[in-house]
Amino acid sequence: MAAGEAAGRGVMRVTLCHDGRLNAMSRAMWRQLRSVFESIQRNADVRCVLIEGAGQAFCAGGDISEYPAFRFDPQQLRDFHEGDVWGGLAAMLACDVPIVARIAGACMGAGVEIASCCDIRIAETGARFGAPIAKLGFPMAPREAALVARAVGDVTARQMLLEAASFSAAEMAQRGFLSRVVAPERLQAEALASALRIAALAPAAARMNKQTLREIQVSNMPQTIVHQAQTATDSVADPYAYADSAEHREGINAFLAKRAPAF
Amino acid sequence: MAAGEAAGRGVMRVTLCHDGRLNAMSRAMWRQLRSVFESIQRNADVRCVLIEGAGQAFCAGGDISEYPAFRFDPQQLRDFHEGDVWGGLAAMLACDVPIVARIAGACMGAGVEIASCCDIRIAETGARFGAPIAKLGFPMAPREAALVARAVGDVTARQMLLEAASFSAAEMAQRGFLSRVVAPERLQAEALASALRIAALAPAAARMNKQTLREIQVSNMPQTIVHQAQTATDSVADPYAYADSAEHREGINAFLAKRAPAF
Amino acid sequence: MAAGEAAGRGVMRVTLCHDGRLNAMSRAMWRQLRSVFESIQRNADVRCVLIEGAGQAFCAGGDISEYPAFRFDPQQLRDFHEGDVWGGLAAMLACDVPIVARIAGACMGAGVEIASCCDIRIAETGARFGAPIAKLGFPMAPREAALVARAVGDVTARQMLLEAASFSAAEMAQRGFLSRVVAPERLQAEALASALRIAALAPAAARMNKQTLREIQVSNMPQTIVHQAQTATDSVADPYAYADSAEHREGINAFLAKRAPAF
Repeated sequence: MAAGEAAGRGVMRVTLCHDGRLNAMSRAMWRQLRSVFESIQRNADVRCVLIEGAGQAFCAGGDISEYPAFRFDPQQLRDFHEGDVWGGLAAMLACDVPIVARIAGACMGAGVEIASCCDIRIAETGARFGAPIAKLGFPMAPREAALVARAVGDVTARQMLLEAASFSAAEMAQRGFLSRVVAPERLQAEALASALRIAALAPAAARMNKQTLREIQVSNMPQTIVHQAQTATDSVADPYAYADSAEHREGINAFLAKRAPAF
Repeated sequence: MAAGEAAGRGVMRVTLCHDGRLNAMSRAMWRQLRSVFESIQRNADVRCVLIEGAGQAFCAGGDISEYPAFRFDPQQLRDFHEGDVWGGLAAMLACDVPIVARIAGACMGAGVEIASCCDIRIAETGARFGAPIAKLGFPMAPREAALVARAVGDVTARQMLLEAASFSAAEMAQRGFLSRVVAPERLQAEALASALRIAALAPAAARMNKQTLREIQVSNMPQTIVHQAQTATDSVADPYAYADSAEHREGINAFLAKRAPAF
Repeated sequence: MAAGEAAGRGVMRVTLCHDGRLNAMSRAMWRQLRSVFESIQRNADVRCVLIEGAGQAFCAGGDISEYPAFRFDPQQLRDFHEGDVWGGLAAMLACDVPIVARIAGACMGAGVEIASCCDIRIAETGARFGAPIAKLGFPMAPREAALVARAVGDVTARQMLLEAASFSAAEMAQRGFLSRVVAPERLQAEALASALRIAALAPAAARMNKQTLREIQVSNMPQTIVHQAQTATDSVADPYAYADSAEHREGINAFLAKRAPAF
């Protein structure tokens, strides 16, 4: 991941970068994401963030090659989702500076989660959206599901999670997730123009508007799920009790062996 | 109503069936609906439910021919809505197994409520949606209104309830209620394909995803309305105090007499 | 502002009227709005309200010429938003009678807020929607932002507030804000037809449906924001602490001087 000044006053560019893996998020990248956005939040000079993927994708999901090392132990699985992943996403949600997402190509799983933390989402017509983790044998972690369902809508979230469906940019615009869809060759200019436009408008008003809109969403975010994820231990309430299940192992192992899973 | 194994592993088919009445829901059918879904919830072999209407309709509404027998008494009216109707809908909402709705023809009133409890809603282009009970002289019961407003959206709910407006499948897809709209001759195959696809994906992950998405919705479901409906007795708080009103009687009686109501 | 009986039984017409200023809302007009809707709420003969703008606009926003007189003092700013503006909007939200909005031309800022309190929103194809107050150097007041974000959706609210984006009627219909879009020459007839249709349907049922739908929304309205706005005094919690800021003064002063603001 890289963060640095973009062209134009007050626009900070954040680039998701995992070479050769369509910017799939490793554990280290989730921690960097948190660090980068905590740094932005402390920087009074930043007026807008422009987040994008390196190369031809936004972010294709999690880095599944890392999963066997930690996903089959409940406590490590919890640490991953509640620490690394939610740490990164929460830092984005806590950021008072407007965030523009420039979305090209794959925006799947972790990519949808990261995009769901942005204020303005601009995609090119070839972008593709989904969270087909039902093929991998595991559910979406509760707070991540709440975040995504709020951003993509309940109907689309159920298609993504239960049918493992994916959607085009045009479909995601129609379903209310995207701010704009543009031709591939227009994407870079449109996203930067949005960021520069925001950076030229009243900066304190923008931060206050983001704080207000966050309050509205936080008050609608189910606290029971948040609490479950932090304190519960029994099988119903513990969303990570599935770590060592045959279904979970089959999904991950089949993917890595490049074969169809048998659930 | 009929429930039985559909073609394909783990798919249970539930058929709304009221011959000659476009599957209008009688009190007995609401009780059957509850019983069927409680049975499905206890059956670990079911991986997906496919719910559909017999013949050319999904469900045209409630069985209005039964209404004069109980709707004009507040306690009986409450028992109907909070017991029979909500009993059936709550059993669907409590079902951890994904539910696919195959929607042909009329999907009105009770039909919209039942469809609102499903995860995937697939309709044919000729399907029709609404809840024109303002013509019948009564409001939607509070928990049913909360369920429908959440599923169809506030704008559409107000058009259905205040204007007695009805909508095409294309309109309901545009308004975010439907997962997919297909040609009539494709409906059966598309709905079954969705159910089979879901049944082939990780089953425990699906149940956990449904539990999480339910928690999100329950935490956003107004408890005050639930409590009102259970304990209130005064005219403001009792949503069934209208049972014996002239307006209610006029709406039901005019419908049964096949004349226009005069409110 | 004018209120009077419209053609047809039980339809009350309310006209936003500020000659030569596209019906921009002055403080006096906000107080009138409250008075008109409190009067309608007490009038058992009204079955539907039809609200519209005089001339070629619905409402172009607030009357900015009044702003220098009170916006730069925190207590006066609070009194304006929590007293005058919210007083008018709250009276509309508390109205049990269905409200149809006929929206022609500009529907900006205060216009979007007023439209967000209506049940049925019918616009002509040339209508234009937005809330570009980021150009004026101030954020949307918390309860107004919660109202608008709920009605236009989170994605659109962020574009309006952070990008100062505006939208066509077709876009706002696609985004779920409008009930219908019609050709300009059809607008008057369509809006009146909707009001007359509602007025001919069961009136007590309509009031009960509105009460139920309001309960659903109030229970989802963030109380923390409401409380902040009423009791907080520190800079984080006081949404009106920006009153005397250079950014706020620059936005208002630049607008009135017809020059671009420099934030």
